[in-house]
Amino acid sequence: MEKRIPITVAEAVKKVMEAAGAGTKETIHIDQAYGRRLAEDVVAKHPVPPFNRSPYDGFAIRARDSETASRDHPLTFRVIGEIGAGEVFSGEVKEREAVRIMTGAQVPESCDAVVMFELTAEHSDGPAQYITIKRPFMPGDHISFAGEDTPEGKVLVSKGEYINPGVMALLATFGYSTVEVAEKPVIGVFATGSELLDVHEELQPGKIRNSNAHMILAQIERAGAAPLYFGKLPDQFDLCLSAIQEALQKVDLLITTGGVSVGDFDLLPDIYKEIGAEVLFNKVAMRPGSVTTVAETNNKVLFGLSGNPSACYVGFELFVRPVILHQSFSEKPHLKKVKAELAGDFLKPNPFTRFIRSSLRIEDGVLQADPSGFNKSNAVAVLAYTDALTMLPGGTRGFQKGDQVDVLLLDSPEGSEWPWE
Amino acid sequence: MEKRIPITVAEAVKKVMEAAGAGTKETIHIDQAYGRRLAEDVVAKHPVPPFNRSPYDGFAIRARDSETASRDHPLTFRVIGEIGAGEVFSGEVKEREAVRIMTGAQVPESCDAVVMFELTAEHSDGPAQYITIKRPFMPGDHISFAGEDTPEGKVLVSKGEYINPGVMALLATFGYSTVEVAEKPVIGVFATGSELLDVHEELQPGKIRNSNAHMILAQIERAGAAPLYFGKLPDQFDLCLSAIQEALQKVDLLITTGGVSVGDFDLLPDIYKEIGAEVLFNKVAMRPGSVTTVAETNNKVLFGLSGNPSACYVGFELFVRPVILHQSFSEKPHLKKVKAELAGDFLKPNPFTRFIRSSLRIEDGVLQADPSGFNKSNAVAVLAYTDALTMLPGGTRGFQKGDQVDVLLLDSPEGSEWPWE
Repeated sequence: MEKRIPITVAEAVKKVMEAAGAGTKETIHIDQAYGRRLAEDVVAKHPVPPFNRSPYDGFAIRARDSETASRDHPLTFRVIGEIGAGEVFSGEVKEREAVRIMTGAQVPESCDAVVMFELTAEHSDGPAQYITIKRPFMPGDHISFAGEDTPEGKVLVSKGEYINPGVMALLATFGYSTVEVAEKPVIGVFATGSELLDVHEELQPGKIRNSNAHMILAQIERAGAAPLYFGKLPDQFDLCLSAIQEALQKVDLLITTGGVSVGDFDLLPDIYKEIGAEVLFNKVAMRPGSVTTVAETNNKVLFGLSGNPSACYVGFELFVRPVILHQSFSEKPHLKKVKAELAGDFLKPNPFTRFIRSSLRIEDGVLQADPSGFNKSNAVAVLAYTDALTMLPGGTRGFQKGDQVDVLLLDSPEGSEWPWE
Repeated sequence: MEKRIPITVAEAVKKVMEAAGAGTKETIHIDQAYGRRLAEDVVAKHPVPPFNRSPYDGFAIRARDSETASRDHPLTFRVIGEIGAGEVFSGEVKEREAVRIMTGAQVPESCDAVVMFELTAEHSDGPAQYITIKRPFMPGDHISFAGEDTPEGKVLVSKGEYINPGVMALLATFGYSTVEVAEKPVIGVFATGSELLDVHEELQPGKIRNSNAHMILAQIERAGAAPLYFGKLPDQFDLCLSAIQEALQKVDLLITTGGVSVGDFDLLPDIYKEIGAEVLFNKVAMRPGSVTTVAETNNKVLFGLSGNPSACYVGFELFVRPVILHQSFSEKPHLKKVKAELAGDFLKPNPFTRFIRSSLRIEDGVLQADPSGFNKSNAVAVLAYTDALTMLPGGTRGFQKGDQVDVLLLDSPEGSEWPWE
């Protein structure tokens, strides 16, 4: 029987990242950009606001004309025009003159304050319009000055970042009608296992439905890549080999689930040999997922993930996700690591690093990681409530409720640069 | 000038929720289900595992036959067959017999323990195969028993929940080849404001590009609905009226951004009157977004959000998102509310409830809400880093760094039932 030598999670991740090729970019219309990753910096192409603008509906005046206004001595201004949003007032505003101005409109050059409607009283005398004000205003009052939000040329969001609704607003503000984004890496998936039924098939003795494929296709989407499912690998060596060779032409990364155990019926090691793929590792000092195998051929990484659902899930997030994010230009391709309080006991030590599927909650501002149900590595149901992996280092000690532990977040568009020791 | 009476955020949200119609459901293929919301419970249609299965590669035996095995007195078992994953062993396993079994395969009925490969030594004598073992095994050793993960009939995930990769695994496991999900509500968007340029247009004096529309279309997608952008509303009353009437035929909810200020050029109040829409409120005691207007006609809600980007953003998340989630069968349609430590000072009190755009970080397990940049309500850039709204209640007190405050999470697929007092 083959003897496998486990390497640490950090070593394994390092090897995978070294084997990962670079990403490619594409130019898309802004309407398609939400949820993608930037392949260029978003730069302020003009100051924001681009001009001195009024944040309220009101009247633009010269502040110095209001100096002596008071409750007892209100001052009257003549209204000489009005500016709708998007309009420009080209005349000059002189002493004791005012221009009616709408929210968002450009403040006339000769004015340096805006008086809100609520602070004025209006009256007219024939065609002539007037306002009175009962307090003085300072230069700059109620004006949003050009550039006060953002100066021109500033990098606002960096290449590799996730495009959220706020980033969409910035792209639109600065005229990015097309956006350079990371092309979604195409991730192929094969299932292996003669025990696997398709989702529409009736259950049969000894068999189970193939849940891993559906799960991992969703994980691929969550990581921002494009999944491509090839179905089940054939059991025969030649058919299996040609299926993998054909698939490799169409994908950036290839995942197989199942068939990586130390067993008799596993064709993958021989297939790796046949296609000249270098096996980077075939055992990792972790639970679940210790039998994860990763190989490389022609700058394409082949992931042999366990057929066990939880091991498959964890293996994807630790090893495949960072490659996808790296190929999407992210500088922080790994799961975001934070500290949390353990909400359950894990008293039995384990020589391997454990990744406990957990659900997070925040109690009085403190993050707690709750192991989702009992934690056998074949527990399918708990994955539905998993939004984090609690990382318990291997060794001779157990862990108990209240211990501070490291936690990897699964739903965050943010990431970590290198969460491993 | 019209006088508006502000109502509290809680009252405003309550009015909106009362006006919101029910959602509808549709049946889709499992391949399309990731990221949708369930319109049915996910039920365990069989126990998991469905049979007693082997979690390892090894040999199935009768535990009682190993009772006397020890290092000094190893016992020999005859290997009488093998079971690949998905196969069933139909023979009977008798005294000192073993069956080779692969990970995931069904344990023969006459066996009650599995011995891992690593704990056996194999030898053969002609065609006959044998193993020796050096320790006793107990009944149940290394068997995953039928139903130990999940009993049949258990509700695993409830209607209204978000379909994440773990839920996908469950759907596949239980044969949901089609899934009932919430139909995505269609949310129409109109922009108003003659100062608005399209994203591809050159900047002009007094004008700005329309960033709100792109932002809010992304917010609609993030909330799980289908955005439908109708462009800019015409400035003329008749054209504006017919545009809104036509749009209402195509959408479940209608949003307009801009044109809700207490100003001269706003056509919307008259349009609401003309189409017989009841105005639920037109001022809310909040910052930003106090001029938010919501009206209802024929079970459709019309949202008049501020043209100010931050007010528009906040107004969407507080008022539109819960309607979308409610129509997606979520029992917790509001933004998830948690406690966090304030990471900056807000010493100046404000009579209105404030929603401060913030970015979250976790320091040593403690959630901190960091106000993203300086907080003028027209700051576009900060929205890119916003993943939470810090809620500062209105009143006579200010807030300082370190205070525990309420925070609404923007990126969480989870929600709150009713986060308001």
